[in-house]
Amino acid sequence: MANHDLIRQLAKNSGGKIVLLVLDGLGGMPFEGYDETSLELADTPVMDSLAKEGCLGLSHPIARGVTPGSGPAHLSLFGYDPVQTPVGRGVLSALGIGFDLLPGDVAARGNFCTIDSTVRIIDRRAGRIDSDVSLPLVKKLDQIKIAGVETHARLVKEYRFMLVVRAEGLDGRLDDTDPQATGKTPLPVTALDPAADKTALLVQSWIDAAQVVLKDEHPANMITMRGFGQDPNLPKFDDLYRLKAACIAVYPMYKGVSRLVGMDVLETKSDFSPKNEFQVVAENWHDYDFFFVHVKPTDSRGEDGKFLEKARVIESVDQALPSLLNLKPDVLVITGDHSTPARLRSHSWHPVPTLMWAPGTHLPDRTQAFGEREAQIGGLGQFLAQDLMPMIMGHALRLDKYGA
Amino acid sequence: MANHDLIRQLAKNSGGKIVLLVLDGLGGMPFEGYDETSLELADTPVMDSLAKEGCLGLSHPIARGVTPGSGPAHLSLFGYDPVQTPVGRGVLSALGIGFDLLPGDVAARGNFCTIDSTVRIIDRRAGRIDSDVSLPLVKKLDQIKIAGVETHARLVKEYRFMLVVRAEGLDGRLDDTDPQATGKTPLPVTALDPAADKTALLVQSWIDAAQVVLKDEHPANMITMRGFGQDPNLPKFDDLYRLKAACIAVYPMYKGVSRLVGMDVLETKSDFSPKNEFQVVAENWHDYDFFFVHVKPTDSRGEDGKFLEKARVIESVDQALPSLLNLKPDVLVITGDHSTPARLRSHSWHPVPTLMWAPGTHLPDRTQAFGEREAQIGGLGQFLAQDLMPMIMGHALRLDKYGA
Repeated sequence: MANHDLIRQLAKNSGGKIVLLVLDGLGGMPFEGYDETSLELADTPVMDSLAKEGCLGLSHPIARGVTPGSGPAHLSLFGYDPVQTPVGRGVLSALGIGFDLLPGDVAARGNFCTIDSTVRIIDRRAGRIDSDVSLPLVKKLDQIKIAGVETHARLVKEYRFMLVVRAEGLDGRLDDTDPQATGKTPLPVTALDPAADKTALLVQSWIDAAQVVLKDEHPANMITMRGFGQDPNLPKFDDLYRLKAACIAVYPMYKGVSRLVGMDVLETKSDFSPKNEFQVVAENWHDYDFFFVHVKPTDSRGEDGKFLEKARVIESVDQALPSLLNLKPDVLVITGDHSTPARLRSHSWHPVPTLMWAPGTHLPDRTQAFGEREAQIGGLGQFLAQDLMPMIMGHALRLDKYGA
Repeated sequence: MANHDLIRQLAKNSGGKIVLLVLDGLGGMPFEGYDETSLELADTPVMDSLAKEGCLGLSHPIARGVTPGSGPAHLSLFGYDPVQTPVGRGVLSALGIGFDLLPGDVAARGNFCTIDSTVRIIDRRAGRIDSDVSLPLVKKLDQIKIAGVETHARLVKEYRFMLVVRAEGLDGRLDDTDPQATGKTPLPVTALDPAADKTALLVQSWIDAAQVVLKDEHPANMITMRGFGQDPNLPKFDDLYRLKAACIAVYPMYKGVSRLVGMDVLETKSDFSPKNEFQVVAENWHDYDFFFVHVKPTDSRGEDGKFLEKARVIESVDQALPSLLNLKPDVLVITGDHSTPARLRSHSWHPVPTLMWAPGTHLPDRTQAFGEREAQIGGLGQFLAQDLMPMIMGHALRLDKYGA
């Protein structure tokens, strides 16, 4: 388990330069008609040569058997216990849809529900309405104006949406308004701490306004809110690891999680290419110790069931890698946040192939190429993703000896 | 470590059908004159083909180096932390000797001891008497009648026996009567909670009667009791995993542990054969999501030092397997609760070869046959047995994604 006290105590302000290259949803399974996974099938001479020189292993994002969402999976990669780290559902929802959450914002998850004439809930999910039904409703909610605060409503999916309240001095310690049962009225917004009383009143005003907006809709004529929270104020990379860290990502979700852990988010072209991203690394090479570079399309191709196209994305990263290697990083890790087998068209629990290349400090194993089955016999073995950052720090010679 | 909150939160009420086939004491070592283990030597074309298609790994029942008894080993396989799970020694003793413990029963471990004329203990283990000396004494104790309760005394081994008290409204929160030192008198039975006062009096009456029964015996003229407890009310399979689960086992011990976790124990012929057990699975196939099938003789042959006969038992299971595969389980796991190398004639700490076959969701590894050494290079790696259930749940597509 992540032992931040230990790492903070050992982390040094000097050592090697690190690149953590995350190919989202990297891990896979063989597809119908193939014996290989997308990664194994891909023509990746550069990654294969890094694997030959360095070593491989398999990373479990959350726990064996557990399929992660992208938020918790990245928290793990960054060295935080993804189950114990108190990032509320509201904050994760906001990050998950790419909402640009700022420190101090209060975020919550909302559900559309159906109430009867006595305001009692008769369906907690409003008949599980489709997104095309809920989207116009969310747009109406987004128009609500409450004096003194900014409010933002965004669709998550189907009957689920996200609310963000933005102002100075808000406090996210609010209880859910979802009574968790039909036949009951939605609960009033209540503060879990007196410091949140003002925020509770503001959110209640917004909910009251939403009730008016929705009163003639059917079946989604009311809402319930839960998972209120704010930026959880996680230990930051510079405090925890003594690393000046930068994020290079196109999708807002990954920028959001990176900000949560104190990375600078570098300006990147919005049309993704590995070459562009590595170019941003090069331009900022002397200003940071640690670069988190995020490649999204591997996951997207997996989610779409596009086995060969996922391999092509991996190949495009491989072709761009020499420009990254020219910078002479001391530690280069290539991994994923989770597996997304095209065969399953979804995230999965399968452990993630991970490549550790640190020419001064790695112990070469017997692996000859970068792939799932080579990783099964790799020198890093199988480990929890939250242990990867200490492994990286070790290979970067950035951790002092523990004890005499 | 078993994270029941997480699993309970993620478990879905739908997904694949699961068979957990446990060959008791499956793991082994090469025997004098052989390079292979019993499992490796056994002619198992079906298991080998499942290994080729699926993947292997090695399971540590409790912790590295620790040899388990069957009770804790099965709790691990069922996904419970075997060290933290509060199953008292009395309950485990009862299950361990196959006593058919019912909810509400209070169970305790007893030791014969030797007292002098002032009732002071002069030998806490009555000279470590053999089972043939203690068995007739336990039978006498079993005849004791206490008004309003049923009592059952059974030999465990040598100077150790088990007591079960059965009645409505009992409470097992009683302190040990063993003073843990010679020169002291056995302690009176005391309740650790006022709700257990009545039970304390009943057990004290039984001990007083036992003292009378034993007064002319030597050296076992008194008893001490410890490890009082009741069914620990563990989270049940339907609550924890949302699985309707059935147990198919011949020996009472395994039925008992299965009942503790909420499985239905299915009627099975008392003369064991894999074919009979798989027949029971087939007859109940549509009524359950999860089948725990227990094969005992692998362990018995190991305990008896019968290396080749252990291989024969494994072969008999392999021959019967096609009838199980005909049912088309979505996930079939073949493993043991622990190793029982014929060479050691006892349970051991060696990690247990484990086969995961889930044709829709497994990632095939490079293993070609089911055996200890193949499992060492298997795709599942080495893991704690208590992590097997989440792995099974993942492969059965029965866990929701964690986080957005």
